[in-house]
Amino acid sequence: MINKIAIVGVGLIGGSLALQCRKKGIAEKIIGVESNTNHAAQALSLHLVDEILSLDDAIKNADVIVLTVPMNVLVGLLPDILDKVKGQIVMDMGSTKSILSKAVDHHRNRGRFIATHPMWGTEYSGPAAAVEGAFENKAVILCDSEKSDSDVFEFAKKMYSMLNMRILEMNAVDHDLHAAYVSHISHITSFALANTVLEKEREDNAIFEMASAGFESTVRLAKSNPDMWTPILMQNKENVLDVLNEHISQLRKFKSCLEKDNWEYLKELMSNANQIRRIIQ
Amino acid sequence: MINKIAIVGVGLIGGSLALQCRKKGIAEKIIGVESNTNHAAQALSLHLVDEILSLDDAIKNADVIVLTVPMNVLVGLLPDILDKVKGQIVMDMGSTKSILSKAVDHHRNRGRFIATHPMWGTEYSGPAAAVEGAFENKAVILCDSEKSDSDVFEFAKKMYSMLNMRILEMNAVDHDLHAAYVSHISHITSFALANTVLEKEREDNAIFEMASAGFESTVRLAKSNPDMWTPILMQNKENVLDVLNEHISQLRKFKSCLEKDNWEYLKELMSNANQIRRIIQ
Repeated sequence: MINKIAIVGVGLIGGSLALQCRKKGIAEKIIGVESNTNHAAQALSLHLVDEILSLDDAIKNADVIVLTVPMNVLVGLLPDILDKVKGQIVMDMGSTKSILSKAVDHHRNRGRFIATHPMWGTEYSGPAAAVEGAFENKAVILCDSEKSDSDVFEFAKKMYSMLNMRILEMNAVDHDLHAAYVSHISHITSFALANTVLEKEREDNAIFEMASAGFESTVRLAKSNPDMWTPILMQNKENVLDVLNEHISQLRKFKSCLEKDNWEYLKELMSNANQIRRIIQ
Repeated sequence: MINKIAIVGVGLIGGSLALQCRKKGIAEKIIGVESNTNHAAQALSLHLVDEILSLDDAIKNADVIVLTVPMNVLVGLLPDILDKVKGQIVMDMGSTKSILSKAVDHHRNRGRFIATHPMWGTEYSGPAAAVEGAFENKAVILCDSEKSDSDVFEFAKKMYSMLNMRILEMNAVDHDLHAAYVSHISHITSFALANTVLEKEREDNAIFEMASAGFESTVRLAKSNPDMWTPILMQNKENVLDVLNEHISQLRKFKSCLEKDNWEYLKELMSNANQIRRIIQ
């Protein structure tokens, strides 16, 4: 579809995108930009990218530049990249949008940029975590697309269609609110559940021999990378706090039922939760 | 291995056990006992069981009687069944053990019973939820086995070995403590997370179009059956409350980090949670 794509940050997301770009014929050549030299070497040896270039060389050479670095790095990097583009398309795939959006809102090249968030990931990180067939059949959010030039918007839609993703559009503020509910809170509950159990483990190891699939399912996100998640939670602090407060108050309802032997209400809380079947099969 | 096994309660667990009994040659004939007439018909039409009998007829006919009914039913049923056995083996597969254990501790036929808890399940229920190849490679807890006659204990070990399960032994009190950590709390966090998000959904539907695999993973247990889970949480109330209090206090640490912009400590909490990798791959 295009000649050269540059992927800045060849980790789980960037590496998985690289694999799909090759498989789906999105770009003829895939350039990687990676400041971690071990990761750069891995990205080459795993054939995720065709070559590793410096950021400046990648910007000069590529038609499209996709940013898949942690959110704290991204917010600093994006304005600098927009300073340097002359017609190239710039896209991010990060998990928060409001702060990023504000950082480039008045940039003279704002139109060359589109903010996107594919709702896909795993609890692993680095180039070795890259997955074949990633993103397929998941949702992707395109944010504030009216601020992007029409060719930039059309490219993003085309690329994500080629990845078989379901395209949703919303503004950055709505995105961050919803992301807090469908992604960020799940990570916090998993991290906290892991800490709850690890706290107990000091006393007894038997619980781990018993760990079931249900436990594994609720706790697997606790393996996620803190370097990636700290800036996400920082940047979406207000929304995450709202959801976390709501979640703690929902947990307190369960607590109160147990304390007061209120089994009817406990059952009602669980029956209400069963309605989640409408959303996930 | 034996002639006739009776499975009392042919739902997710009982139905899955029936499938494995046939496949592994654990019993030549599989008798179902099922008070729900729809479920009884389904159990026959799905060929989970060879015949449906009344409980009394099943007790008379079977060599081994396995109880896979909800915990509240189980505690009432077990003493009655032990009243009627003459040498048969009785086994339960329930999720709590202390109250059940007390209910039959002084029964003259206590030796004919063994309390077991295979650490396997799904969020679905009823005979149609029965799964081929269930239980394999999971842990199973045999409780208070010194109170069981040796042939009863040996049968349980043999049966679970044939299911390729990892056999752990512990007393009922320890079992209930550990089960609170590796299973019961996961269900509460999932139910509460579902309610948190459903509460929000009244205002906006977009969040469900965005739901990702991570969200699905943390919330899937919220589809579990309240009729099964109410008695489990009732019977393990004290342990579950302890774990739930610890979990709420772990969540409050995340909350406090966000409120106070304490990003170093937030990262430390997540890094600590990463240690869960030692337990789940």
